[in-house]
Amino acid sequence: MKFIKTPVKGMCDMLPSDMRLREHVLSMIKDSYAKYGFMQIETPVMEHIENLTSKQGGDNEKLIFKVMKRGADLGRAIEKGTHEYADNGLRYDLTVPLARYYANNNQKLPTPFKSLQIGNVWRADNPQKGRFRQFTQCDIDILGDDTNLAEIELIGATAGMLTQIFATVGIEAFTVHVNDRKILSAICLQAGFKEEDVASVLISLDKFDKIGLDGIRKELVENGYAEDVVDNYLKIYENLKEASCAEFCKDVVGEFLDQSVVDAMEEIISCAKSMVNENVTIMFDPTLVRGMGYYTGPIFEITIDGYGFSIAGGGRYDKMIGKFSGQDVCASGFSIGFERIITILKDKLEDEAKISADNLAILIEKGVPTEKKMEMFAKAKELREAGTTVTIQPMKKNMKQQIALLEKEGYTQFEKVYRR
Amino acid sequence: MKFIKTPVKGMCDMLPSDMRLREHVLSMIKDSYAKYGFMQIETPVMEHIENLTSKQGGDNEKLIFKVMKRGADLGRAIEKGTHEYADNGLRYDLTVPLARYYANNNQKLPTPFKSLQIGNVWRADNPQKGRFRQFTQCDIDILGDDTNLAEIELIGATAGMLTQIFATVGIEAFTVHVNDRKILSAICLQAGFKEEDVASVLISLDKFDKIGLDGIRKELVENGYAEDVVDNYLKIYENLKEASCAEFCKDVVGEFLDQSVVDAMEEIISCAKSMVNENVTIMFDPTLVRGMGYYTGPIFEITIDGYGFSIAGGGRYDKMIGKFSGQDVCASGFSIGFERIITILKDKLEDEAKISADNLAILIEKGVPTEKKMEMFAKAKELREAGTTVTIQPMKKNMKQQIALLEKEGYTQFEKVYRR
Repeated sequence: MKFIKTPVKGMCDMLPSDMRLREHVLSMIKDSYAKYGFMQIETPVMEHIENLTSKQGGDNEKLIFKVMKRGADLGRAIEKGTHEYADNGLRYDLTVPLARYYANNNQKLPTPFKSLQIGNVWRADNPQKGRFRQFTQCDIDILGDDTNLAEIELIGATAGMLTQIFATVGIEAFTVHVNDRKILSAICLQAGFKEEDVASVLISLDKFDKIGLDGIRKELVENGYAEDVVDNYLKIYENLKEASCAEFCKDVVGEFLDQSVVDAMEEIISCAKSMVNENVTIMFDPTLVRGMGYYTGPIFEITIDGYGFSIAGGGRYDKMIGKFSGQDVCASGFSIGFERIITILKDKLEDEAKISADNLAILIEKGVPTEKKMEMFAKAKELREAGTTVTIQPMKKNMKQQIALLEKEGYTQFEKVYRR
Repeated sequence: MKFIKTPVKGMCDMLPSDMRLREHVLSMIKDSYAKYGFMQIETPVMEHIENLTSKQGGDNEKLIFKVMKRGADLGRAIEKGTHEYADNGLRYDLTVPLARYYANNNQKLPTPFKSLQIGNVWRADNPQKGRFRQFTQCDIDILGDDTNLAEIELIGATAGMLTQIFATVGIEAFTVHVNDRKILSAICLQAGFKEEDVASVLISLDKFDKIGLDGIRKELVENGYAEDVVDNYLKIYENLKEASCAEFCKDVVGEFLDQSVVDAMEEIISCAKSMVNENVTIMFDPTLVRGMGYYTGPIFEITIDGYGFSIAGGGRYDKMIGKFSGQDVCASGFSIGFERIITILKDKLEDEAKISADNLAILIEKGVPTEKKMEMFAKAKELREAGTTVTIQPMKKNMKQQIALLEKEGYTQFEKVYRR
């Protein structure tokens, strides 16, 4: 029989120690967000292929694992010869399923609806270190709240959750970067770019950290934009100092930017500050862009101080659900980098493989009479009910080695039951 | 844009109230089995198509959701014209993945290894009431223990877990049915059936509850077995009284059945009794067969008294992992009917939609100054840290209705923040 021992390419088997850490973090995430009134929901892992290829998923649509039609449907597809063999696909994110879910179930859901989704997604990406074809995503979203209370809650809840999770490994300092798509757009327009160029200009600005201002200038000019417009545009990003949103925007407000956008941003930052610990910095970051094209308002990202990547990111996307459902629904969401959290914790934790401290292994020799065994199982029952972890197993010939291995699993007490 | 609001056929969107119940039961299952030393593991949802179609999955192999090859691989498959378009498939159970997992990772795992798997499986079955194409399975298995300590632990742990879960809805009485494949087989041989007929005879005996002894007799004769052999065979199942395994087997032990099998069975029942509450009956059930062909020793099933179906079932399958890995590994496992547990609890629970008792909704009117909002968010922070669920949302024009709906969600305290 042909049998393959390894998991399919790019996917992982989770060992008990992996699972212990993941389950621990998952329960902290769930408990933490529950305190903010977020409610957990779940969708099937499969979605209609039509929904997955509706152009909302960007490049991810190229990475879909497609699920084949079955039975007569497959027969007809083969006959037709058009190679349309898939009717479903595995979800590549949790946003498209949320849009479908809300369209399907909104009558049964409160408004505003604070949703928590935790689930696997699949992308047929080229596997590389730390990037897998099956991985866990964790999204919170607030649907149906068009005020900035949504952003404040999202940022406060997520910063609070991260503070709690990372406290155990001594990581305390986070920075929440906040910006607004409307501000990014106004700066483009004021510099002389056209409305239809904004998306492309922002793709270049998004590379600020990687290629710097000179790199962006080069790229914009290569893309055919007039040099004076480009110079105009980049001037505002030169010599950036930490400034409030109001200070940064003071020359832009007016024709292209409404004062209310700036006020709302200031309020998000002030109120979020009142919700987080002193080690969390919340700052206006005019270079923050966020990749996905569907954002329409405030955008935000959380970095751990000293680490060069973001650990959570999101923003307001008021038009997207409407594109799916035909009915506009305002929405703002935060996506948590669950696998990144796990990677960082794993690096920091020296010893995450242990079970709880209070535990016992009972080793039973071959030939112990039934009555004696019954006693031991009854004793184990009592201990387990009182909260102790107890494992019962056959005594091995090399008991010394057996005990050493059990100690590695975290067992500290041993009871040996002999034949006589 | 073509957009489909409903989930794919046969699969479900989980509402917040569904998730609350499922998460509650899941955490009870995890906590309960952890006390017995079971360790959670996880495999990818996709397996190599070769592994899924290796004839260990029985009829489930006809129900596989196949995942299409991608890129150049798919191109080559289409060119070939053999219609071999799939390289992976979604798992239809947790047993085949466990066999692969153990073959791949056993060097990093203890012996015996007590595994807990909770995960979705997929079957392209005809959807019907209570049967879905994506559903959650929960399996515990003990690999590498060839003694009956494994069966005692599996039965004790599972009966304990069920007792705990169902206590909240007033269901207390369970029956654990136990039998052994070796006993079933010996009875066939003693009656005059040939070794190679045993599997087919047991398929008929498995219908005892549905078609009774007369039905079984008719089926066996129709299948071409000699009437005197059939009569011989069914005599032992006539006028069944509750009897111990030893009593039931007393005429069979000898040529076809070893006394040690009977002793081990008696010990399983005695020791398991010492682990469970008084409302759990543990009985030898000579009509228990269990469908899957891979069982080799003790088999068991748990029913809730008064319900006509099993809620958990399993047995020893010493040869199966070896068939996959090329190396024999003894194994015994229990599969818990998670979706059935949920269905029963849902019927029994009048009110599972509520959040925790201690909670507050803060309603903020439009135009409240930032300072006032900051105060409210800081207050919410303190309450949340102390364990209260707090949600903050914009005050609606129809606040009376808003509060009524929040009360339905489970909020009991309300704080209204006005502009002045």
